[in-house]
Amino acid sequence: MPSLRIALCQIDIIVGDLDRNVELILEAISRAEAADCDLAVFGELAICGYPPEDLLLKPKFMADNRAALARVAAATGDCAVIVGYADDDQDAPPREGESQLPGEPANGAILNAAAICANGEVKGRFVKQWLPNYNVFDEKRYFRPGEDYPLWSIAGVNVGVSICEDMWVDPSPVNVMADGGAQLIVNINASPYHSDKVEARDAMIARRIDETATPLVYVNLVGGQDELVFDGTSVVVDGSGATIARSKQFEEQVQVADFAVTEPKPVTLPVTEVTSRKSVSRGDLPPILEPLLDPLEEIWAALVLGARDYVHNNGFTDVCFGLSGGIDSALTAALCADAFGPEHVHAVMMPSRYSSDHSLSDSEKLVQNLGIDGRVIALEPAHSAYMEMLTPSFGTDPWGLTEENLQSRIRGVLLMALANKFGWLVMTTGNKSETAVGYSTLYGDTAGAYAVIKDVWKLQVYELARDYNRRAGREIIPENILTKAPSAELRPDQRDDQSLPPYEELDPMLIEIVENNRTAAELIADGHPEETVARIARLVDIAEFKRQQSPLGTRITKRAFGKDRRMPITNLYRGT
Amino acid sequence: MPSLRIALCQIDIIVGDLDRNVELILEAISRAEAADCDLAVFGELAICGYPPEDLLLKPKFMADNRAALARVAAATGDCAVIVGYADDDQDAPPREGESQLPGEPANGAILNAAAICANGEVKGRFVKQWLPNYNVFDEKRYFRPGEDYPLWSIAGVNVGVSICEDMWVDPSPVNVMADGGAQLIVNINASPYHSDKVEARDAMIARRIDETATPLVYVNLVGGQDELVFDGTSVVVDGSGATIARSKQFEEQVQVADFAVTEPKPVTLPVTEVTSRKSVSRGDLPPILEPLLDPLEEIWAALVLGARDYVHNNGFTDVCFGLSGGIDSALTAALCADAFGPEHVHAVMMPSRYSSDHSLSDSEKLVQNLGIDGRVIALEPAHSAYMEMLTPSFGTDPWGLTEENLQSRIRGVLLMALANKFGWLVMTTGNKSETAVGYSTLYGDTAGAYAVIKDVWKLQVYELARDYNRRAGREIIPENILTKAPSAELRPDQRDDQSLPPYEELDPMLIEIVENNRTAAELIADGHPEETVARIARLVDIAEFKRQQSPLGTRITKRAFGKDRRMPITNLYRGT
Repeated sequence: MPSLRIALCQIDIIVGDLDRNVELILEAISRAEAADCDLAVFGELAICGYPPEDLLLKPKFMADNRAALARVAAATGDCAVIVGYADDDQDAPPREGESQLPGEPANGAILNAAAICANGEVKGRFVKQWLPNYNVFDEKRYFRPGEDYPLWSIAGVNVGVSICEDMWVDPSPVNVMADGGAQLIVNINASPYHSDKVEARDAMIARRIDETATPLVYVNLVGGQDELVFDGTSVVVDGSGATIARSKQFEEQVQVADFAVTEPKPVTLPVTEVTSRKSVSRGDLPPILEPLLDPLEEIWAALVLGARDYVHNNGFTDVCFGLSGGIDSALTAALCADAFGPEHVHAVMMPSRYSSDHSLSDSEKLVQNLGIDGRVIALEPAHSAYMEMLTPSFGTDPWGLTEENLQSRIRGVLLMALANKFGWLVMTTGNKSETAVGYSTLYGDTAGAYAVIKDVWKLQVYELARDYNRRAGREIIPENILTKAPSAELRPDQRDDQSLPPYEELDPMLIEIVENNRTAAELIADGHPEETVARIARLVDIAEFKRQQSPLGTRITKRAFGKDRRMPITNLYRGT
Repeated sequence: MPSLRIALCQIDIIVGDLDRNVELILEAISRAEAADCDLAVFGELAICGYPPEDLLLKPKFMADNRAALARVAAATGDCAVIVGYADDDQDAPPREGESQLPGEPANGAILNAAAICANGEVKGRFVKQWLPNYNVFDEKRYFRPGEDYPLWSIAGVNVGVSICEDMWVDPSPVNVMADGGAQLIVNINASPYHSDKVEARDAMIARRIDETATPLVYVNLVGGQDELVFDGTSVVVDGSGATIARSKQFEEQVQVADFAVTEPKPVTLPVTEVTSRKSVSRGDLPPILEPLLDPLEEIWAALVLGARDYVHNNGFTDVCFGLSGGIDSALTAALCADAFGPEHVHAVMMPSRYSSDHSLSDSEKLVQNLGIDGRVIALEPAHSAYMEMLTPSFGTDPWGLTEENLQSRIRGVLLMALANKFGWLVMTTGNKSETAVGYSTLYGDTAGAYAVIKDVWKLQVYELARDYNRRAGREIIPENILTKAPSAELRPDQRDDQSLPPYEELDPMLIEIVENNRTAAELIADGHPEETVARIARLVDIAEFKRQQSPLGTRITKRAFGKDRRMPITNLYRGT
């Protein structure tokens, strides 16, 4: 049986940086050619980055992206290249609806496409048929679906090319291609990570292969793009369902895999000749299966890569944040030290008149353990100044929540001043439980460019912190931080559980409300305490105005705050 | 010829407030019945509000919304009612793609529907066929399109019902219904306002009637919902194209219109009997055409209604903002006085060490002219406190931009403290030109719940302010504010035109970039100065991170910042 040598090119592209993306692609092609590959496969929209969002509506962007593809194609030889790009059919009839508005230009059709290139030219394209428009995806905003099932003859093997969602639907275009003569399916992806995604993906690949007995090459992007992180984890699975290559998670890699091709099948779909069989002979490479990370390590790696790519791709090297002595900022500090290197991490301890002594000493210990920069700025002078400035308006009434928010906002101002002065980015430290119920101060602890643990539930914050110490084999995050009662320390003797149920009760409720779209009435029917549920559900709703002004953070669950969950701010539905 | 009496029920519904929406609908039905109407027509998704966004993904919300419709239907008599609601077919096959993910529940199909009700029951439904998924619309995220063309016999007249976009596409379902026997087309809408929208709508209605010679009843929602404002402006146009009724712009109204119905046509579509002909006789009402506002008044009304509904529907009565002595905050003050009543408006003057004397005196004059509450809080104590606190970090270097931002952020903190203490909402005062180029301080002048003039270009800010004085017949906004050179007053002798081109040059460039999706290269080719264009285009891109943390504001153009323009923050495309 003939074998095919394929390079899985899992690269970290940046949205809009066409020149750099082309450079990375050309470099990977060179490596594939040097390894004598028949085929090099890249991810979905690898030319322009994913998701390009409304950049796709700029005709000049579309033209530049096609020109970038032409540069890639021009550099190809007899190693065929499959690469994602945005195409358009200028002469297609206008897009549904939009162009009917008087004065609106016709955009033609924009296509989410894979180019099949070899020997200096684009031999053809496959157009994505199934356009996800749910969760974080908006593909129907931009793209028109394809309808054709072309096959490609690459080094004598008939290959069917598909894009991401095309593999996930039932019946799938993948099956049509396999039935129509494809000996190999290539599926290119921009598949955003969430926990359990790898298992879901493996199960779907297994199902397709079970149905078609046709080997499948799955290539994903890797890297962070705003709130999304692509995990890589590209694979080759043979026609019996055995995984014969797996690339790293959360790392760039050009992995070369050989695999035996089944005998030709009867072909009923049109076939385009891309490259002819190579005459070289070579020994089959042994299969390489990069190990899968365990669940907590996987989340850690996602958070590190998401934050790192956000900061670096936006042109920054250094970050700062408020280190409070609590678990959230401690975990954020550890993640940042890992993502940016300790020398690029600046922790700012900002005790107020209500901070406890251990907050500062625990924080200082952590700074030392991580080897990061630390500084202390007491809030008192600004705190007193504001109180003096506001007394004519407020009189002598007790300030209550206003004073709590004031302290948090002074911290926000100090962090932003440091960031402005030294060219750092501020990272926020709020977790998903806090973000859900609005246990935060807008323009205070929500002030910053990126929310490192925004999609991590509080109980998982503890798990990640303990696992971090375990992996390090020492107490980097001081035990006292792991065991103290959570508190915002914005008034004397404050503790989270004075305002909120314990996180062991709170997190499961919030998961139902936020991730599973359930309402208070349903949770009460399940036996959760009525008063608590109604209060918590309401807090989730009214915190929407805070969330819509809070920074992005890496998505690691199947429903994160952000693009994934689009709620009105003005919303009087109570679900009780 | 028989006549039909129709109530155009243009009401201000709130997303999610099912009880209140039902109450408003029932009240309008009573009025229609009292006026002896044959038919009462409400807007798109009037039961649950538009857009309900991800509330639609909660099965309990869907059930509650269907129960709300049942209450409306139960109250109907022989005045037929057409009302928008969200329906679902629980037994429909799962939604595309999503349910294929292991562990995801099947959602069935969600439908954007119009119920046709009479004599205590829902007689049937029409399902929207064309689902807009561009600009501010995400309907393909939720809805499955309908395929049927039912007709409804109402008081002896065959009526075709359609929803919003169904009228805007070509070929249109409206034409299919007219050709199939409809003597009257009813089109129910949630049509968000932008300037020139009324003209576009009239032109589209004229086109449909030109093609079909069939009269059309167009009913729109009215009111603000987050960044959208629905303008009402419902109409009845007869089969010759003459407008025989027009409702108010930006106001609730139940308008009753009589009009002659054409002779029956041959019917080829299925017809459901809804109500039989009434035996009452009545004189035809004279046509009432509410006047259309002139373009600046129309924008003013949109801004007032958008801000008012946001504040009131979120449970607030009073607003505050920083009054600087510049035109933007002056216009915001005037709009707020109009929207909330002067007694609910609190202007805070916060001079810094760099503020000019006229800033305070001009502001005080405006406060007096508007009859709003005003107070002065000098920034100096907090300014000095922060400088003292940061000196150990900063040393004696000049502070530059950091100090400018600091002043703006102190103002943000003060406004939020006042708002927290007194239960006000902070309004921000930035215009679209500033918002475009990021000429603002995050957590400083962008801090607030709603950005009243966010979608108003700077040159239009002046136009609106002058027109306001003209309509008032006196100089409410002091002439000095209208004529001084724009300045942020954050350093000595600062003026906007030191950092930005004059607005006469800047605004047209920004309109091309932001509203028309053009890039720097294209503007340079048009003859704009190369260095300026490249700099401005880059400012627009890098300000995306500020915009994504800034408050919502009323959309008045065909491409506003917000849902309408979805750009990545991490975006290295330069378009040069």
